[in-house]
Amino acid sequence: MKFNKVLESIKTYEAGKPIELVVREFGISPEEVVKLASNENPIGTSPAVAEVIRKNADKAHLYPDDSMFELKEVLSRKFSVEDENIIIGAGSDQVLEFISRALLNENESVLMSAVTFAMYEIYARQMGAKIVRTPSYEHKADEFLDAYNEYKPKIVYICTPNNPTGDATGKEEVLRIIEAIDNDTLVVVDGAYMEYAAAKDTKYAITPNDLLGYENVIYLGTFSKAYGLGGMRVGYGIAQRDLIKELYKMRPPFNITTLSLAAAIEAAKDNTFVKESIALHQEQIKRYETFARENGFTYIDSYTNFITYLFPDSMNSTDISDMLLKRGVIIRNLASYGMNAVRITIGTERQNDIFFKHFAEVIA
Amino acid sequence: MKFNKVLESIKTYEAGKPIELVVREFGISPEEVVKLASNENPIGTSPAVAEVIRKNADKAHLYPDDSMFELKEVLSRKFSVEDENIIIGAGSDQVLEFISRALLNENESVLMSAVTFAMYEIYARQMGAKIVRTPSYEHKADEFLDAYNEYKPKIVYICTPNNPTGDATGKEEVLRIIEAIDNDTLVVVDGAYMEYAAAKDTKYAITPNDLLGYENVIYLGTFSKAYGLGGMRVGYGIAQRDLIKELYKMRPPFNITTLSLAAAIEAAKDNTFVKESIALHQEQIKRYETFARENGFTYIDSYTNFITYLFPDSMNSTDISDMLLKRGVIIRNLASYGMNAVRITIGTERQNDIFFKHFAEVIA
Repeated sequence: MKFNKVLESIKTYEAGKPIELVVREFGISPEEVVKLASNENPIGTSPAVAEVIRKNADKAHLYPDDSMFELKEVLSRKFSVEDENIIIGAGSDQVLEFISRALLNENESVLMSAVTFAMYEIYARQMGAKIVRTPSYEHKADEFLDAYNEYKPKIVYICTPNNPTGDATGKEEVLRIIEAIDNDTLVVVDGAYMEYAAAKDTKYAITPNDLLGYENVIYLGTFSKAYGLGGMRVGYGIAQRDLIKELYKMRPPFNITTLSLAAAIEAAKDNTFVKESIALHQEQIKRYETFARENGFTYIDSYTNFITYLFPDSMNSTDISDMLLKRGVIIRNLASYGMNAVRITIGTERQNDIFFKHFAEVIA
Repeated sequence: MKFNKVLESIKTYEAGKPIELVVREFGISPEEVVKLASNENPIGTSPAVAEVIRKNADKAHLYPDDSMFELKEVLSRKFSVEDENIIIGAGSDQVLEFISRALLNENESVLMSAVTFAMYEIYARQMGAKIVRTPSYEHKADEFLDAYNEYKPKIVYICTPNNPTGDATGKEEVLRIIEAIDNDTLVVVDGAYMEYAAAKDTKYAITPNDLLGYENVIYLGTFSKAYGLGGMRVGYGIAQRDLIKELYKMRPPFNITTLSLAAAIEAAKDNTFVKESIALHQEQIKRYETFARENGFTYIDSYTNFITYLFPDSMNSTDISDMLLKRGVIIRNLASYGMNAVRITIGTERQNDIFFKHFAEVIA
């Protein structure tokens, strides 16, 4: 059978290895596996959310409210926007997919930083679009505008804080990029880790409302990180109503499960849990910074719930990741991003203890 | 902003109205609303599945095993196929989306029956493909092959049993269509309601294994109906490995939530629940057949968990659906399919009692 040409160049996303796989492959008991690879919330699921899930467990046979009335209401209050400004995706990933499908074709290009969230490229390639990257992994306005003027991309992705590097772009710098881009190019501001950046330094805080005045900008957020719902697949896009209306045409019905919807509604109200997550994170990340300095390598100053360790030539990120994996410690090797680096989710105190112990032994 | 041309002709899917909406709009208390519009399992969620969900509620923060190792293992045993023959979607809907995106473009057409599952058309239109329909809603081999020879469509959809009409196509007839179609056209055999047809008459039973010898055929199944997981969004496609491999390129990572995965693994093993669902259905559907005969209209002999009532000119499906809705009884009006007909999910004995009472009053 002849498939669409675009399939020829598609790479599939490499997901963080699940605990189950390490258990199967290396015979390590599940309790001893420490997974710091997927930026899941180390505190776990909010107790209030877990309770809502348990209460709704016997509604698994019922389709969700496809209008997502209640979740939109909670989000519109939270962000001071209207229902019509919101589209909900199965993770903010799915909103990226809607965007790609609504705007791209093989005559278009997209612009992103040198190292950023892998799904931008994957969804763009699915539409046959060309990928243009700036020289730096940081989002530098000058680099973005040079490339924008040269390639006139259909979409510009600004991932702030950036994944998998952890750096953030100041609000002023982001607005400088947006202001210089004309209305036929969409600017995606992906704030999947924004809660961590905003808590660290308000200069990096960007809200959906800050961007709602631009007809060609969409803000993306997710429940997967600070809200602790990685497994439930709920994210959102916030933009002017006309843009949301077009993206809706690519949304499949019932794209959020009944339990995910209930969980997200509860999570959106549960500010205490988010605060606790951030507090634990801010306390524990210092240990990672100290550990790097004491062991002769550097790191990227992080505005996210993970840290990126940059290794000198004497250390190899692939070897280190593999050795840790065999010990039941799962981190993310960034070799496939062209970096001799690893990305580590900041865990609980206990998880971090185990990580430091094994890591020290592995590099000894 | 200029969007892709295909967006201009896209209709969005009209979901069955959720109970919450009827509660909001007509002020009816949730307990009194009877929803027979979305072919949800009236027995509810299997107790074993609900228990698994409750046990896993505190894992909502963890991404699912993206290899879906365990669910594929259960399915491969159930259907005597290999892991590599299986792709899992967020509902079989999502597998339809993968198929559409992997195969279609604006130069292609797709072939389906006159009245069939709405998402075939919607996903095909998202790719700009042309829609060709046979004259009848039944899947007649002669009609399919005439249209196939005339249009050489890229995809042929066989929905058996058919939704929203409820009729089924015999295995022999389906194989007659498949045998006459060459390998550059994909044949989708959508068995979303197959459990009900197979239980009623083995002549209509088609298993994934029956079709695995054909390189251009894919069988679709779902956990949304007989397995009672409509709200969890889990379906599957089973085909030769090369085809599955191509479809995988369109699959986004983590397309099944952590709880949906756990629920589907349990549901796939829970044959007792499926048997009970079918037994209740077979007993209750007779009441719907009798009711139609006694009230002067006909119905389509059903091989699914719903029944389609065909009205004479003296009755109007839109008026009847609207009047029932105001009384808190939600059924599916088929006017948008060009039929003066309604589709009603066979409910529990109590739900059906309420339906008959209101329906009799409305048409009196």
